[in-house]
Amino acid sequence: MDEMTRVAVDAMGGDNAPAEIVKGAVEAVNDNSKIKVYLTGREKEIERELGQYTYNKDQIEIVNATEVIETAEPPVMAIRKKKDSSIVVALNLVKNGKCDAFVSAGSSGAVLVGGQLIVGRIKGIERPPLAPLIPTETGCALLIDCGANVDARPSHLVQFAKMGSVYMESVVGIANPRVAIVNIGAEEEKGNALVKETFPMLKNCPEINFIGSIEARDIPTGYADVIVCEAFAGNIILKLYEGVGATLIKKVKAGMMTSLRSKIGALLVKPALKQTLKGFSLDEYGGAPLLGLNGLVVKTHGSSRAVEIKNSILQCVTFKEQKINQKIKDKVILKDE
Amino acid sequence: MDEMTRVAVDAMGGDNAPAEIVKGAVEAVNDNSKIKVYLTGREKEIERELGQYTYNKDQIEIVNATEVIETAEPPVMAIRKKKDSSIVVALNLVKNGKCDAFVSAGSSGAVLVGGQLIVGRIKGIERPPLAPLIPTETGCALLIDCGANVDARPSHLVQFAKMGSVYMESVVGIANPRVAIVNIGAEEEKGNALVKETFPMLKNCPEINFIGSIEARDIPTGYADVIVCEAFAGNIILKLYEGVGATLIKKVKAGMMTSLRSKIGALLVKPALKQTLKGFSLDEYGGAPLLGLNGLVVKTHGSSRAVEIKNSILQCVTFKEQKINQKIKDKVILKDE
Repeated sequence: MDEMTRVAVDAMGGDNAPAEIVKGAVEAVNDNSKIKVYLTGREKEIERELGQYTYNKDQIEIVNATEVIETAEPPVMAIRKKKDSSIVVALNLVKNGKCDAFVSAGSSGAVLVGGQLIVGRIKGIERPPLAPLIPTETGCALLIDCGANVDARPSHLVQFAKMGSVYMESVVGIANPRVAIVNIGAEEEKGNALVKETFPMLKNCPEINFIGSIEARDIPTGYADVIVCEAFAGNIILKLYEGVGATLIKKVKAGMMTSLRSKIGALLVKPALKQTLKGFSLDEYGGAPLLGLNGLVVKTHGSSRAVEIKNSILQCVTFKEQKINQKIKDKVILKDE
Repeated sequence: MDEMTRVAVDAMGGDNAPAEIVKGAVEAVNDNSKIKVYLTGREKEIERELGQYTYNKDQIEIVNATEVIETAEPPVMAIRKKKDSSIVVALNLVKNGKCDAFVSAGSSGAVLVGGQLIVGRIKGIERPPLAPLIPTETGCALLIDCGANVDARPSHLVQFAKMGSVYMESVVGIANPRVAIVNIGAEEEKGNALVKETFPMLKNCPEINFIGSIEARDIPTGYADVIVCEAFAGNIILKLYEGVGATLIKKVKAGMMTSLRSKIGALLVKPALKQTLKGFSLDEYGGAPLLGLNGLVVKTHGSSRAVEIKNSILQCVTFKEQKINQKIKDKVILKDE
């Protein structure tokens, strides 16, 4: 475990770039001396930000990249054309083995497409899923896949289940994680064509602790640790989590402002409430890994601030130390092929 | 508008049957003299419940049915075998024209399957969608389809959009309702195969006010009035709404109990908060209609209490008075075929 973890960080990606990205990188290296960060992006802008901080200069290096991929750009085209963008330059650092991992708060599409096109899939992995941790009543669960690969096949979902199990066990530290497939009823015969075909395959998987179907209603309760679904469904789940949460909290705040009595009460409950709701925030869990690539690619929320960037960088250390990709090779592929 | 609306009500369905169902029926007829309710189920049990109330005896009639379909029973089998169940007897009242509508808090599967098999689809309607109203920041939206018909085709979704528009306009009273399709991004080229194929068809539909894609995050904000999706996705959305809401409210309550200060605050905010959150509860909107049948079938939540049963019965009156099925025939089918 004496080795450095080398992380390429997209200094130009996200709503708060480069300021918060650079700040997060500084905080990460100040937290852990075994990290080296390569900040990709416009040299001058990054230098200006770095100038404000004290840190070990050996742990941060700037890699100049003159272009920036915008969120609205069609991803495949952007990755192909903008060879000198902060995302493409960073992905090439991972591809060439100069870095172990890549963290970006930039264009989701470009990160997902670029990860596959440039870093490439581990041999035998059919599709790399995007797998964020989502908060539950009892802790968190891995939602796999929320990525760009819609219309998955049953064999993809089986690999997602196995990769998700490896991740929850080794990175999050949940022994024998409970795996469930998102379905519209608890019974085995329920579901759409994809789920009906996948269910018996998961049931016959000795490598995972498959507990059956999970209805969307039970996801927030913490009923399962690894929640397997096709990316279109996963995207709906992730974004609705965010949407319903935001609306309800807005409603709670508005409700507290309706009378003088409730306003006084609001002042009293606010600190405790803030603390409790923090534990149910999607932002608390850092970035979502794109699993199954020859290297680690982590996508963090577009609105990420320094703390999320820092957490995402630190997460790369665990990923490397736990040899996740080796475990994926051992547990997901060999028994499949 | 002088005509009676005749509603068959499943007295044995749901967690609180028959007590809350019978109570809801009594409240509905006491509220509106133009309703006649036919309570189907075990005569003796229903009589005992009815005995507690004062109401116009001409407005409630018991239709004996000796069997009950349980929630866990496979629906198709249950509908075929239990000919004397409260659900099958009630559906036959609609089929034979003795009733205009059917309301049940019982087995969703049996109600959906039975509605199609017994009452039957309007000629030209490919699939009858289940379309609940869900709360949003600004009011409510119709989520269409949350039913049992997964793996829909594009033409089904187009009919859902048209039926949903008719319903929102005539029953809820939203002029020119905004129709959106659930998608994983805002751009037209995003989506799975189904959405990509359906999008241009909706765009070319002169009968509806199509506003494009809606991401799950924006559903609770009230961005659209009619939210079109395939039933598997719709089921996820409906149940996650419920799940995230329940978990967050539990968290808010727990947060308020963490200190003496917050406990005092909780006492002060509670009444105002309760009122505000009530507006964001799924239960407030009565039952979900199964649209496109030769009659109206309304499925209410399994945990329904009298108020929801009453609201669901009253909803049948609007449905009949507004001649929704005639409008569906005029606006959805004729231009299609």
